[in-house]
Amino acid sequence: MTYQSTISCADLQQRDADDPLHTKRAEFYLPDNTLYLDGNSLGAMPKIAAQRAAQVVNQQWGDSLIKSWNLHQWIDLPFTVGDKIGQLIGAETGQVVCCDSTSVNLFKVLCAALSLQPERNVVLSVNGNFPTDLYMVQGLAALSGNTRCQLKLVDQDELELAITPQIAVLMLTQVDFRSGRLFDMAELTRKAQQQGILVVWDLAHSAGALPVALDKCNVDFAVGCGYKYLNGGPGAPAFLYAAKRHHAQLQQPLSGWMGHKTPFSFSPEYEKANGIAQFLTGTPPVLSMSILDAALEVFNDVDMTQLREKSLALTDCFHQLVTQHDCLSTLQRITPTAKSQRGSQLAYRHPHAYAICQALIKYGVIADYRAPDILRLGFTPLYLRYVDLWTAVELLADVVRSKEYLQAEYQLKHKVT
Amino acid sequence: MTYQSTISCADLQQRDADDPLHTKRAEFYLPDNTLYLDGNSLGAMPKIAAQRAAQVVNQQWGDSLIKSWNLHQWIDLPFTVGDKIGQLIGAETGQVVCCDSTSVNLFKVLCAALSLQPERNVVLSVNGNFPTDLYMVQGLAALSGNTRCQLKLVDQDELELAITPQIAVLMLTQVDFRSGRLFDMAELTRKAQQQGILVVWDLAHSAGALPVALDKCNVDFAVGCGYKYLNGGPGAPAFLYAAKRHHAQLQQPLSGWMGHKTPFSFSPEYEKANGIAQFLTGTPPVLSMSILDAALEVFNDVDMTQLREKSLALTDCFHQLVTQHDCLSTLQRITPTAKSQRGSQLAYRHPHAYAICQALIKYGVIADYRAPDILRLGFTPLYLRYVDLWTAVELLADVVRSKEYLQAEYQLKHKVT
Repeated sequence: MTYQSTISCADLQQRDADDPLHTKRAEFYLPDNTLYLDGNSLGAMPKIAAQRAAQVVNQQWGDSLIKSWNLHQWIDLPFTVGDKIGQLIGAETGQVVCCDSTSVNLFKVLCAALSLQPERNVVLSVNGNFPTDLYMVQGLAALSGNTRCQLKLVDQDELELAITPQIAVLMLTQVDFRSGRLFDMAELTRKAQQQGILVVWDLAHSAGALPVALDKCNVDFAVGCGYKYLNGGPGAPAFLYAAKRHHAQLQQPLSGWMGHKTPFSFSPEYEKANGIAQFLTGTPPVLSMSILDAALEVFNDVDMTQLREKSLALTDCFHQLVTQHDCLSTLQRITPTAKSQRGSQLAYRHPHAYAICQALIKYGVIADYRAPDILRLGFTPLYLRYVDLWTAVELLADVVRSKEYLQAEYQLKHKVT
Repeated sequence: MTYQSTISCADLQQRDADDPLHTKRAEFYLPDNTLYLDGNSLGAMPKIAAQRAAQVVNQQWGDSLIKSWNLHQWIDLPFTVGDKIGQLIGAETGQVVCCDSTSVNLFKVLCAALSLQPERNVVLSVNGNFPTDLYMVQGLAALSGNTRCQLKLVDQDELELAITPQIAVLMLTQVDFRSGRLFDMAELTRKAQQQGILVVWDLAHSAGALPVALDKCNVDFAVGCGYKYLNGGPGAPAFLYAAKRHHAQLQQPLSGWMGHKTPFSFSPEYEKANGIAQFLTGTPPVLSMSILDAALEVFNDVDMTQLREKSLALTDCFHQLVTQHDCLSTLQRITPTAKSQRGSQLAYRHPHAYAICQALIKYGVIADYRAPDILRLGFTPLYLRYVDLWTAVELLADVVRSKEYLQAEYQLKHKVT
């Protein structure tokens, strides 16, 4: 894709007219006067999700009460939703389950991976990984007195050198939550497995944002989030992938009754379920999982390759528009430029990033800020139009040019508490 | 409370007329032609919960999107809901948090209790405790190679003898899920603590069903369920209590970002939050927690002593009605008769319990069955009327007298699969 030296608003209108995904926007509820560039924090609401919420509350809970466990297949939700997510992340059926939070699921897969190879105990990750991922390893390490598990962190450019046979588990987030940098899943998984390392991927910023090919990359375990690009609603349940080849051997300690082979026999001895069900712990969060289930229907007719193309085009256009404004030269892009190295977001450093973000929000452009100085913008191809980029960058330029953000900073410093 | 030798339907109507809680029923949505005796599995829907569901989905998620974390105090939900539950279980503020599932929370408090006293490792419980409680201990034991944690199970009548200084943690469910037997929390906690044991109570069948006095009983830790007597909806988030005196010293391994002292500093090192927040793990399930938050408002004007009185009266009346039918003499009551020894349910053994339960459901009386031979009936004083008992027992007698359940069993055995 090449551009003329300058993109015009008309060019963007033409792109919308040509966009094979342009009808998807109508499937979302988007508030008036809002330009939403934060779908990587909380996805916008699919209309079908709101309909399902009303249905599951009023008809399923209200009318059918306890009978809904069978009548409305509540008991199967972790697997039906898991398999739907599986289709978006390249997993054959029976390997993905929807449950708990990303953090809790990470604990489960870390323990599972370590149980498969008890003679190794080092979990390797990179500095800058999302903190909860590191904290969960630290929690497991502390629980075991650092015997069963130790965390080793290296800088990203040292990663490949650190992949040695001393490592038990390589734990990486595919798309970096700050910079949007995309790791090469196939290559890193292959290199790690050559050293006998098991690989855990966190897909928080990639599931639903780009094509993921877990089975094809021979990934061992993965976890991810339901409320970002999957649009499952605030605090939607998370998911967990475990490759079928490991199911028979692994153990995980959050062995609740829903992971039992026969939960309703109420046997006093835990006996793990055969398949992916062994990763379930407590009773599934039926209401929120039903809403995520509905939200996933939006993806039914989406070609993930087209989605990826639009995502890259949106970010390319946005950045090109930024470069067309001299006043925005103070924004330092930290997202890699190569398409193979970035997800569906852009991140810019600016000393006044926080105040700029606040000023943008005031004008209806919802972006977010990550400490200490990053303005982060998420691009969701399902509901974002190309013309939206024009508006967003014009407002960004206005804010920066007028130094209005200084006023926001002033207010922040002197706010009445 | 004494009865005449026989209770009539008119007596029950009079009791309803005199019931100080009779107005609460109108706050629930109850389906037509249904008599719900399963609130101990899944509470019926408070109307206010359905209203809040629509509001949190459409206005908060739909309209305000990511801004709702502050605008609608999503970030505070685990604590506001926790404190509301605290009021029902005798906990001063800052000691209860709403999060995750009961099973996951049990893992956290078990680890926390064991971290306070690392020289002991035995978790004592009773045979027949709810399986997930036992499974979570088994999971932790397996993770630690049985060094950090071992499960010891005794029969209920051996419990007091087993409370010795070798025990680290006494883990009990206050109301037994099968029989409805109620443990003496004050006495058992005192006896255990005299031996230096930390005490963990599972309140799944007591929170919202009877007055609980955690602080007064000097309990160390507790967990419980949001979807039974708290009416939070299917799979509602659970809760966790940790006495303030332990907050500074304890450690728990599910140390996700929401339990960090400053989650939004995105620091690479976990540093636990000061108070009850240290038990948080991942992002809170906002939608389902908001619905539970609304459901709890039903308790605002409820005197838990009155609720307990009605609960005991309901179960007394029901059983009295059962004894008035000769044909029901085959039902063997396993719930203790003493008021101080039972929760808000009745359980009867019968060789055809499963089929009887299915036949009752067919006639709109929703009870439940627990293997191998228990008919379990839950009595929820907020939405159950005394006259409902008359109808329920008449139908139960019809089913048993006509041996209609044999037909249900026949169909079950020969069902087309």
